[in-house]
Amino acid sequence: MPTPSAYEVQFQPVGKRVTVLAETTLLDAARQAGIDLTSACGGEGNCGQCQVVVLTGEATPLNADEEFLLSEKDRAEGYRLACCTKILSEVKIHLPKDSLITGQRLQVESNLRTFPPDPLIQTYAVEIPPPTLNDIRADFTRLVETLAEHSFSGGTAPLPVMRTLSGTLRTTGWKATVFARGTEILAVRPPDQRPLGFAVDLGTTKIAAFLVDLETGTTLATGSTPNPQISYGEDVISRLNYAYRNPDGGHLLAQKVHQTLDEILGDLLNQVGAERAQVVDACIVGNTAMTHLLLQLPIQQLAKAPYVAATSHALDVPAPELGLGMAPGATVHIPPTIGGFVGGDHVAMVLASDLDESEKITLGLDIGTNTEISLRLPGQAQLTAISCASGPAFEGAHIRDGMRAASGAIEKVRITAKGLELTTINDEPAVGLCGSGILDTIAELCRAGLVETNGRLNKDGKGARVGDQGTEFVLVPGNRSGSGRDIVLTQKDVNEIQLAKGAIQAGLQVLLEHTGTPREAVQEVIVAGAFGSFLNIENAIRIGLFPDLPNAQYRQVGNAAALGAKWILISREARARAVEIARRTHYLELTTYPKFNRQFARAMMFPEK
Amino acid sequence: MPTPSAYEVQFQPVGKRVTVLAETTLLDAARQAGIDLTSACGGEGNCGQCQVVVLTGEATPLNADEEFLLSEKDRAEGYRLACCTKILSEVKIHLPKDSLITGQRLQVESNLRTFPPDPLIQTYAVEIPPPTLNDIRADFTRLVETLAEHSFSGGTAPLPVMRTLSGTLRTTGWKATVFARGTEILAVRPPDQRPLGFAVDLGTTKIAAFLVDLETGTTLATGSTPNPQISYGEDVISRLNYAYRNPDGGHLLAQKVHQTLDEILGDLLNQVGAERAQVVDACIVGNTAMTHLLLQLPIQQLAKAPYVAATSHALDVPAPELGLGMAPGATVHIPPTIGGFVGGDHVAMVLASDLDESEKITLGLDIGTNTEISLRLPGQAQLTAISCASGPAFEGAHIRDGMRAASGAIEKVRITAKGLELTTINDEPAVGLCGSGILDTIAELCRAGLVETNGRLNKDGKGARVGDQGTEFVLVPGNRSGSGRDIVLTQKDVNEIQLAKGAIQAGLQVLLEHTGTPREAVQEVIVAGAFGSFLNIENAIRIGLFPDLPNAQYRQVGNAAALGAKWILISREARARAVEIARRTHYLELTTYPKFNRQFARAMMFPEK
Repeated sequence: MPTPSAYEVQFQPVGKRVTVLAETTLLDAARQAGIDLTSACGGEGNCGQCQVVVLTGEATPLNADEEFLLSEKDRAEGYRLACCTKILSEVKIHLPKDSLITGQRLQVESNLRTFPPDPLIQTYAVEIPPPTLNDIRADFTRLVETLAEHSFSGGTAPLPVMRTLSGTLRTTGWKATVFARGTEILAVRPPDQRPLGFAVDLGTTKIAAFLVDLETGTTLATGSTPNPQISYGEDVISRLNYAYRNPDGGHLLAQKVHQTLDEILGDLLNQVGAERAQVVDACIVGNTAMTHLLLQLPIQQLAKAPYVAATSHALDVPAPELGLGMAPGATVHIPPTIGGFVGGDHVAMVLASDLDESEKITLGLDIGTNTEISLRLPGQAQLTAISCASGPAFEGAHIRDGMRAASGAIEKVRITAKGLELTTINDEPAVGLCGSGILDTIAELCRAGLVETNGRLNKDGKGARVGDQGTEFVLVPGNRSGSGRDIVLTQKDVNEIQLAKGAIQAGLQVLLEHTGTPREAVQEVIVAGAFGSFLNIENAIRIGLFPDLPNAQYRQVGNAAALGAKWILISREARARAVEIARRTHYLELTTYPKFNRQFARAMMFPEK
Repeated sequence: MPTPSAYEVQFQPVGKRVTVLAETTLLDAARQAGIDLTSACGGEGNCGQCQVVVLTGEATPLNADEEFLLSEKDRAEGYRLACCTKILSEVKIHLPKDSLITGQRLQVESNLRTFPPDPLIQTYAVEIPPPTLNDIRADFTRLVETLAEHSFSGGTAPLPVMRTLSGTLRTTGWKATVFARGTEILAVRPPDQRPLGFAVDLGTTKIAAFLVDLETGTTLATGSTPNPQISYGEDVISRLNYAYRNPDGGHLLAQKVHQTLDEILGDLLNQVGAERAQVVDACIVGNTAMTHLLLQLPIQQLAKAPYVAATSHALDVPAPELGLGMAPGATVHIPPTIGGFVGGDHVAMVLASDLDESEKITLGLDIGTNTEISLRLPGQAQLTAISCASGPAFEGAHIRDGMRAASGAIEKVRITAKGLELTTINDEPAVGLCGSGILDTIAELCRAGLVETNGRLNKDGKGARVGDQGTEFVLVPGNRSGSGRDIVLTQKDVNEIQLAKGAIQAGLQVLLEHTGTPREAVQEVIVAGAFGSFLNIENAIRIGLFPDLPNAQYRQVGNAAALGAKWILISREARARAVEIARRTHYLELTTYPKFNRQFARAMMFPEK
């Protein structure tokens, strides 16, 4: 099989580039570039939503679906459906605003460092002398002795490799691609196969995954899916409880994730027409609890003080233990964790954002159901990390009309003299509030004096009323909402946010105090995570979710943990650095920190008008 | 659990000693010493066969079964039933001739070298600091850091170890026995557990196994059982055919052996009251085909010229791959093989008999369904090995009245002026011929001129007659046999033996010629294997089964392969030597050797009267 051609696709106006195989659809290319195009039918050519314009370069001609779905005017203006259009050369593509699920989501993953590919896996193209009456060496011996001529000094292989070797060599005419790790042979494949890797950010809520060419570092395909454990508990603690209290609960939760990961891998491989046996390495990052559940490690001691992990070492786990269909001898790398609630995903985020090498006094925040914060002081080897139980409120959970950041979610709110100004995702009629909308609402209510410093909603303020759960603020009345129901922010919602921001604010204060770092000394704040990257920073500072650091620049870096997973996958240097980061990071346990409770109580206060 | 007491048992008149745990029955002690006591009921106290006399030392008093089965006279003379008598101190035991299945079987395993214990597995007794609010290291980290104080420099463990670690430490009060191999932790167990190993000789016909204390080298229990693959083919080639021709045939054959091995291991552990998780290492030796079937390696290329193995390397296979319930991280060592038909069992035999270091020109023969022969020339690094397809005739198969060496088998035959002198095992009425009886009969018939040089039975000789399969020689008429049928040796039987001895003789001639070794230069012949150790050497030389080497001494060493497996299990030196032996041994393929067929035709001749 000759290596197929690959071309660069450039997306305007977002300035993203991606290199994909010839005949990839523009929809797949956009996915690989991390761009979410609207596509209700999932790429079946039925909905007509994924409209794009090919500015330069060659692509396949209009097909019957496009003829049917695009108007004459659209076609005259060069519109195409991304799912129907396959590239035949380098192309430059224009993305109309309507085709994007949300424009601002494209700002992520900027300003992050990169690692050149330097994989643990070596690839050898070999031609092996077949046996004769005068050369009766065992098949494996002739393989190893041929590899020795390619300066490979090793000679072990797991049984599954030995079991398929004799057959493979006899069907490929004694030519093969050999994938090896150190002295161990992981797979013997037909000639000209590429070594692929699988990088995963296993979030409590969402799983993001990449399929990567290990030698070029090119991301060949990306995918994401909800964490299937959600139905067994939204946050980490409730899932640990489920695993602990139900017979076989841990096994069930592990199986759910294993199955989902294997399905994603299968999907990504299908997208690029590659085989499972080519996938010779993987890296999965996640918080400590997610990692324990993934590996079916004991969790009883993790769920109660002093919150001790079963293991914090980096692990290399045989792929079959995680139910992953990969090359016969492939292992999955699990980076080290820092503490009971600061996991390998935070290590990956520190790595990808270069926090550990920063020349400035820098804070790194990864905001999620659990929020991890690390402090870098230049000149000191040690980083200090804390973990705050911020809860799922910013992900829209436990909020009366909360929702994920999807079509119709209110994502921006302003209270002006004329009244409320709302922006929804895709400009659809509002159906709920996503994290940034919740944040904006509360910040604006504070600014307007409608939320008191103790968090109480002013029931006499404009837009306020008393509902069945106490005071609530009406954002959209039912006759104008997409759901037909009133969209409101309740007193209880405000209190949820109060707890979340209080936990983060108090944690940060303890972190700065404990390390003797004055607030005004902090020079940079790196904010990672999906929510953290799309919110209004001024509002976050206003309500005290982000610290008010007079001299600090904020940098929103998107899903840096996922990117870190990719670097750990393809680069030996990055893998070693991750171990170093974990080793160098001191974990400061807040729940047993003497001053924490007092700080926490104080941090729950909202600002004065 | 305190270490239980162990006592030495001495068996007279055979001079065997064995150390066993207190309250072991004398029947089990005899088994562990390799002594086969008659016991039709298998040790249930029902048959009364396993009579012994306790000469000195303490044992449990007569029980009800013994009162019932032993006569008053027996009891007065101190007779006990071995299966009912448990030792309470050092004892000296007399074995009456009637209680032994066959006396000569006790001569085995003499003159073999020993290796001092030097296991790959290290054992550490540790006490680990429990976590506190000020010490929140992960459980695995505190284990590894404690081990570092015991000069253990490592820190990996397979997932199953990590999964049980937290629970184990919390139930043993943070004290543990840790078993490690190199830098890897294999098992974390309650305090004071011993590291055990499992050594297996996986024969085509019979499986022999030992349970060994890895640190003392003591064999704690032994067992043997038929190879369950026998029902799928008696010899190697028919089993390979079965595996190849039947869908899932290879999987089935592997499973059969895995299950049997796991059952033996369970039995041995029961005998000494130990746990599976204490079994931290294993070594399985077998011929190349048995090893391929055990590991489910491909066999198509092994079954046809040029007979190439899938692998000849030493392997360390995770125990679960072989269905063996051992310590979580335990592996099974499979020593290297020499050629398509000279396996790790021959390597183990060479090791145990010290053939590779012999100061004499020495031949090593391992006679079985397949016969392997190695030649050692002092001063030369290289050994040369051949393999002859000698067939199962000497194991009693393919012989009209052939049988295994069991009660009632004719094991010695002499033709004298007065007629036939026959000896049967246990002096029971004859029911068939075992290997040594077959050999004696043919040798005596040659000596008496009743078999011609071309192998034809003289139909006019005394005792000869013409039966339905041609000429046959009557050994025992039906009215005096144990089965009521005539026991005969047929013309076809003679031809089977002729093929077997022809193959061995021709192979030996080629081996000597090819290496330029004159017959009179050979100084020593080591004969291993069950059959080889019990036959009449003079008769074997007479018919040409053993070479007539004027200056050679013969040494019968019994199951040296099984002993070699034990040394490879407990000694790193032995394990490395096995690899060296395989590397140093040149395999000479007979079937493609130019002169072999001519030699084979000539070697089928029997000697003149």
